[in-house]
Amino acid sequence: MASHRIESSNLVSRLSSIVGKEDLLTEPEDLVPYGFDGTAALKQSAVCVVTPRTVEAVAAIVSLAAAENIPVVTRGSGTGLSGGSIPVDGGIVLCLVNLDEILEIDPANLTMLCQPGVITKAIDDAAAPFGLFYPPDPGSMKISTIGGNVANNSGGLRGLKYGVTRDYVMGMEVVLPSGEVCWLGSKCVKDVAGYSMKDLFVGSEGTLGIITKVLLKLVPRPKARRTLLASFDSMEAAARTVSEIIEKQIIPCTLEFLDRKTCRCVEDYAKVGLPTEAAAVVLMETDGHPSVVDEEADAMAAIAESNGAITVEKARDEAHATKLASARRTAFSALARIRPTTILEDVTVPRSRLVEIVSFVEETGRKYDLDIATFGHFGDGNVHPTILTDETDTEEMERVEHALSDIIDKTIELGGTITGEHGVGLAKKPFLPRQFSEASFSLLRQVKVALDPLGILNPGKIFDPAGEAKS
Amino acid sequence: MASHRIESSNLVSRLSSIVGKEDLLTEPEDLVPYGFDGTAALKQSAVCVVTPRTVEAVAAIVSLAAAENIPVVTRGSGTGLSGGSIPVDGGIVLCLVNLDEILEIDPANLTMLCQPGVITKAIDDAAAPFGLFYPPDPGSMKISTIGGNVANNSGGLRGLKYGVTRDYVMGMEVVLPSGEVCWLGSKCVKDVAGYSMKDLFVGSEGTLGIITKVLLKLVPRPKARRTLLASFDSMEAAARTVSEIIEKQIIPCTLEFLDRKTCRCVEDYAKVGLPTEAAAVVLMETDGHPSVVDEEADAMAAIAESNGAITVEKARDEAHATKLASARRTAFSALARIRPTTILEDVTVPRSRLVEIVSFVEETGRKYDLDIATFGHFGDGNVHPTILTDETDTEEMERVEHALSDIIDKTIELGGTITGEHGVGLAKKPFLPRQFSEASFSLLRQVKVALDPLGILNPGKIFDPAGEAKS
Repeated sequence: MASHRIESSNLVSRLSSIVGKEDLLTEPEDLVPYGFDGTAALKQSAVCVVTPRTVEAVAAIVSLAAAENIPVVTRGSGTGLSGGSIPVDGGIVLCLVNLDEILEIDPANLTMLCQPGVITKAIDDAAAPFGLFYPPDPGSMKISTIGGNVANNSGGLRGLKYGVTRDYVMGMEVVLPSGEVCWLGSKCVKDVAGYSMKDLFVGSEGTLGIITKVLLKLVPRPKARRTLLASFDSMEAAARTVSEIIEKQIIPCTLEFLDRKTCRCVEDYAKVGLPTEAAAVVLMETDGHPSVVDEEADAMAAIAESNGAITVEKARDEAHATKLASARRTAFSALARIRPTTILEDVTVPRSRLVEIVSFVEETGRKYDLDIATFGHFGDGNVHPTILTDETDTEEMERVEHALSDIIDKTIELGGTITGEHGVGLAKKPFLPRQFSEASFSLLRQVKVALDPLGILNPGKIFDPAGEAKS
Repeated sequence: MASHRIESSNLVSRLSSIVGKEDLLTEPEDLVPYGFDGTAALKQSAVCVVTPRTVEAVAAIVSLAAAENIPVVTRGSGTGLSGGSIPVDGGIVLCLVNLDEILEIDPANLTMLCQPGVITKAIDDAAAPFGLFYPPDPGSMKISTIGGNVANNSGGLRGLKYGVTRDYVMGMEVVLPSGEVCWLGSKCVKDVAGYSMKDLFVGSEGTLGIITKVLLKLVPRPKARRTLLASFDSMEAAARTVSEIIEKQIIPCTLEFLDRKTCRCVEDYAKVGLPTEAAAVVLMETDGHPSVVDEEADAMAAIAESNGAITVEKARDEAHATKLASARRTAFSALARIRPTTILEDVTVPRSRLVEIVSFVEETGRKYDLDIATFGHFGDGNVHPTILTDETDTEEMERVEHALSDIIDKTIELGGTITGEHGVGLAKKPFLPRQFSEASFSLLRQVKVALDPLGILNPGKIFDPAGEAKS
């Protein structure tokens, strides 16, 4: 197929006429940073990178790509953890970081309209002066873009109470694979006119269309927050604590955990004061009305203590809360410095099965003689088994592959999903058919083929629509 | 196409071999109740009605329909207000009321699994003993089925705070147009494996698949509730009250309104004690923690008073709250007894434009000399202009058509949607293209053609996939 494409010099000159030279990169050294994202061991050279500044330019680029059958890979900051924005051979990298304006904040309708290149944290920062709140807080929120968050339906630490990115997307403007621009959704809290196409595009990882505007829902900013950190001598005691909190009708905004190995690495790195004998540390945060958060924090502390917590620490003030939260926020960095390669898994199980998957991950580490630490979102059942390895060690990487495969199978057995918040991209693509039946997998394929018949948008990501039926 | 179909006697005998005679209706008098739903002036005779008791039977019926190219119209209680479950010429009516079991309540994961024929209110009733809550409360909740709610993404009175049915659907089992059965979604709070097909099926009005199980999310039951009823001498004063409530970061669970005409009819009918000079009545309910609801109720009362409310009544107890809420709950019944035909509109605008659409509806009533009363969900911008008319009066019905068309156009001009919670079905089908661009309308068509290539599921509803491009 590549032989039918226009020559790359011709392509470059046509792209240059759309965006101008300053927004087109073609020199090999300029392309390097666009060849990878946050995913370990995945790299691919881009042919060229365009960074358009208008929707019209995005549409013109896609129209050109459609006419010439050239793949287009969209990206923002490239913080993805599943390889979803890795360039495709012979394709254009369409980087949307220059579309970075907040277009409207509408306090009467509790909405914000912005371009896809706006940094996630900037959205919440812009909402704050209006007393409003944008809850989704993926770990990368200080550098990730909202377009990437929407394309991947990003999660974060506040999922249990506040949901994920999807729950805050009311509408979007998209450039379709044909180059046509259209609007999906509305500013209406209720809208049932036709299929909810915006919900199909949320989480479609750049394979169905290119998001050029996002209309977000905002909520009132919680007036108070209380933070607690409890440590336990077993994961079971931590799990009982979490279950009892929810049974008592408390839905904290954050219920995060670290396993024994992560605790030790974090303590070594960040000196938070975690007890070295802890088998599990749980970070709990409740937010809302001042009198309610005090009551809920007291109740959570009592539940932790009644379950034999080794320590229960309540934040005295904002600075102390930040310090306690850093135990969780630094987990990945603390682990990443141990070995050359850090593979961050993202399996998710129903909350009640969390202890089982964490134990299984531990066993799997022993079975394959691998260093695996686990942390994640207890309230969501979203665990991040983190394999500390070395991608240049072929033999060890083989064991890593086996371990990942076993963890995926166990997750599916427990009624879970192969990815809770990182997306499928390239990293999870081989595993996707295991989670689906033949009929449900066909639905994905039917949608992709219908909406992107030429297959030019992020081809080869999530699944191969032209591939054989799942085996 | 009908001529290629098997003879109806043959069809009946094959359906009978699937469900047995007791679950198959073919006598004209038995078919009458299945020929209409809650929508005025829409009727069509069914050829036969099947009421299967197992998923396998549903799959067998759909497989037969697919093999013989026979349309299938799925229905529950038939409370729909857009004609979505009106039979199709020569088609099978698949009524799922016999699939009416709650299969599992899982308090640890805050979920409920049930069959589609379960009555909406029974879901919340079953959740209550666990201290859990299923918030969506469409007006028909005492008789509507959850399958119909999911297929239509039903709203209700609690949309502003709690969202709509979609926000509570975590997964579903569907029978595809091929007769294959598959599962979409999971019990995981976070799940980004592949496109969110369950979100595409929510609100697809029986045109993409048949929902045979629903996995619902539950939330903690609010511990307290406060109810207020305020009346105003202008809709503007009511709107200012609503805006200020939201500006003060209060998100009540209910913010409903009645216009002048609806107030008078309700007072006449239910004797709630509404002042006859009121131009707008607003029902406000806040729920949650006892100390918070008291604070919020006081704040809302003060805001209403500062905006010149004629009366502000706070419920003393549960019985009084029910009486105040009945002002809104009886609105439709109060209006429906005035004239032979009651046409309930369902347009929705961004909240900030509500006064404009209500004024426009009033003007439109005067322009076409029609009796139109409006009530609805102030917090959601979802208004129900209700035309009191007589479907046997051809001349008046023509004026009704003109009025509806004008209201739709104004709604779209205000950034609204032609249907907030009732769905498109047949009633809104002619208007749907007005809300969409050619490109976004094509997306609907592409999805339908891809997923139901034979067009056997609820054909002719929402839009005609084989139709010409929008003009």
